[in-house]
Amino acid sequence: MAYLSTKTLQDALTSATQVFTPLVQPEVEEVEITQCVNRVLAQDLVAQEPIPAFSRSIVDGYAVRWEDCVGASETFLRMLEVVGEVQMGQEPTCTIQKDQAAYVPTGAMIPNGANAMVMIEYVTQLGNSIAISHPVKEKDHIVKAGEDLAQGENVLAKGTRLTSKHIAALATLGYTHIQVYKPIRLAILSSGDELVDYQSTPQMTQVRDCNAPMLEMVLQEFGSRVVYSARLKDTAESFQQAFEEAAKVAQCILVSGGSSAGVKDLTLATIDAQGNSFLHGIAIKPGKPTIAGVYRNVPIIGLPGHPAACFVISKLFVLPLLKRIYHQQEQLATFPCVSTFQYRLGLGTTTVLFVQLDGDRARLLYGRSGMVSTMAQADAMVLVDDKREGIEPGDVLQALRI
Amino acid sequence: MAYLSTKTLQDALTSATQVFTPLVQPEVEEVEITQCVNRVLAQDLVAQEPIPAFSRSIVDGYAVRWEDCVGASETFLRMLEVVGEVQMGQEPTCTIQKDQAAYVPTGAMIPNGANAMVMIEYVTQLGNSIAISHPVKEKDHIVKAGEDLAQGENVLAKGTRLTSKHIAALATLGYTHIQVYKPIRLAILSSGDELVDYQSTPQMTQVRDCNAPMLEMVLQEFGSRVVYSARLKDTAESFQQAFEEAAKVAQCILVSGGSSAGVKDLTLATIDAQGNSFLHGIAIKPGKPTIAGVYRNVPIIGLPGHPAACFVISKLFVLPLLKRIYHQQEQLATFPCVSTFQYRLGLGTTTVLFVQLDGDRARLLYGRSGMVSTMAQADAMVLVDDKREGIEPGDVLQALRI
Repeated sequence: MAYLSTKTLQDALTSATQVFTPLVQPEVEEVEITQCVNRVLAQDLVAQEPIPAFSRSIVDGYAVRWEDCVGASETFLRMLEVVGEVQMGQEPTCTIQKDQAAYVPTGAMIPNGANAMVMIEYVTQLGNSIAISHPVKEKDHIVKAGEDLAQGENVLAKGTRLTSKHIAALATLGYTHIQVYKPIRLAILSSGDELVDYQSTPQMTQVRDCNAPMLEMVLQEFGSRVVYSARLKDTAESFQQAFEEAAKVAQCILVSGGSSAGVKDLTLATIDAQGNSFLHGIAIKPGKPTIAGVYRNVPIIGLPGHPAACFVISKLFVLPLLKRIYHQQEQLATFPCVSTFQYRLGLGTTTVLFVQLDGDRARLLYGRSGMVSTMAQADAMVLVDDKREGIEPGDVLQALRI
Repeated sequence: MAYLSTKTLQDALTSATQVFTPLVQPEVEEVEITQCVNRVLAQDLVAQEPIPAFSRSIVDGYAVRWEDCVGASETFLRMLEVVGEVQMGQEPTCTIQKDQAAYVPTGAMIPNGANAMVMIEYVTQLGNSIAISHPVKEKDHIVKAGEDLAQGENVLAKGTRLTSKHIAALATLGYTHIQVYKPIRLAILSSGDELVDYQSTPQMTQVRDCNAPMLEMVLQEFGSRVVYSARLKDTAESFQQAFEEAAKVAQCILVSGGSSAGVKDLTLATIDAQGNSFLHGIAIKPGKPTIAGVYRNVPIIGLPGHPAACFVISKLFVLPLLKRIYHQQEQLATFPCVSTFQYRLGLGTTTVLFVQLDGDRARLLYGRSGMVSTMAQADAMVLVDDKREGIEPGDVLQALRI
């Protein structure tokens, strides 16, 4: 069978990116910034104004000239005259000259003449004067105008996946609406005569289709909208009809099942009847029977029918591929963990193992690729590259939280 | 000021959990499983039926008796008679007896009598017989009925935050709707005379309120719904009025700003006028001026006004606290990284640093707690416990991806 000529995961990603990128035109829409979490930025954002717009205090205390506080200590108090109090949201009415100070609350504007803030903890008020028990350095506790972001400075690049950490910058800069990519329109097809809808009660030899809702959920994390879904019988007609319908409305077609080397290898046959397949297997375990091609100008990916293998491919191939097409430069967020187990590996194949984590210790969940319980109970997938022959307790592994 | 008596982050979490848990009654709703990503399970789920329901093949190949394949190799082929072909989704019509085999595609039912599968790669068809070039062990490539999940087995515990990895198990088990916690009803208040709405154009000394949309986004990741929001002037009346309105509709009130030790420490005063504050500062940097209390039986948390400090507290205090109240046993998903920098720390204070990651190498982003650009550009926060005096290049640190 064709898929026996497999590519490495990296090569598969590279070739699928090359083939698919010209075919998928990411569409753009504008969203309010409080709706942008997990969306991908479709524009470069620059600071339209300096942040902060004015020099601000970041503590409650007194604006001073640092020169007037040199040597201050508990036993050598420096005395300064209080010449004003800056109000929040208002411009200072005073200017700081030699041996003068003004109260400035956190976030308020630094009066002219001052070049440092003394925290209120180091100040004792004595009538119209203050005694300072601590020296300060120039610019202490002051954020200068434009120090956070200078006007015109790049803030966020196109392709950034937005999370809550970005929102403060967007809001501060006055971006209320931003351009993000529209969710990709997906078709999700499941093949297999044994499958029934997960809402149904299966007969003895049938099983509920769990890949369709799982793929929908995995891809939802990327940002997608299922515009067509169907369960396919294991016949050429059923495949062809569904592919035709899907290609009319979807920007990418995912088919689970129907891609193994058995007698009913219909995904590949149907693609090649009308289009071109270019990927016939990935050297990854589980997940080998993965195929990719183009059907009537629409990218199509055939995923394994085993749920865990389907999950692995959706996370390690489909998601990264779509991210590349959508200009996201995200790397897999892997992190190191320490093996507590022994495992023999097949050379030449990337191996994915499901593990539970206890701190940085990884415990292997033994389970076959068809098992849904293993996946559900795992904290992470461990990715072992194809040059490794085995894993020993104590080995450092790379994990991806799932 | 009261907040100068600070608690450690752990103690603050413990006491706030104790005080708040009896006050917040998590409400439950039913959702369709394709809508459950990031929701928190409000029920224990058990397998209502065995998975798989029948013994299945997990490869394409031939069902055999392993005893008939002993010693099979390229030079010692074992010949078996093919007595049938199992169809997907149908019960086998044959039984396997000595030296017999039947074709079984991936996912189909194993016929009676067979106890192993031979992969099609190791089989050559010769008329009505097959030649097998590879031995098999008992149960090879077969998943027995109930092997994935036995009937009655616990699958997912109440408090599990659901992600795509759980969906296959839910769908396979026939759960179409599940009970999850309703989003918590939040009030988000921002205080500060200098603040204007982020949709507005600020005057010279004003700044756009970035904390309100940021808090909304951080808490959205947990599952929340903002039912009341307001910007407060720095007056007792403004605080009291907003707290009263918020307490009528919200299950938890968040106030940013107004919690530092300056002259306008109104959050604490307003809480204590009608209720009880019990937390006056957390020994964490940034984030120290954090307070918590109960206002008319509603939990209220005062967060720092500095955006990055507010972010840190929302991620490390508010989110973990709400998760505990909502029965989520989730730990912070920290992972080790290696310092590339030197940093001096204050003993007795947990320090949070924003870093960029290059593989497992962490590069410090120097920035003050008020800076929105630092936060936006960071990949992770590094959490350094209060017993450490400094960080050197090469030190292993614990990071939390943001």
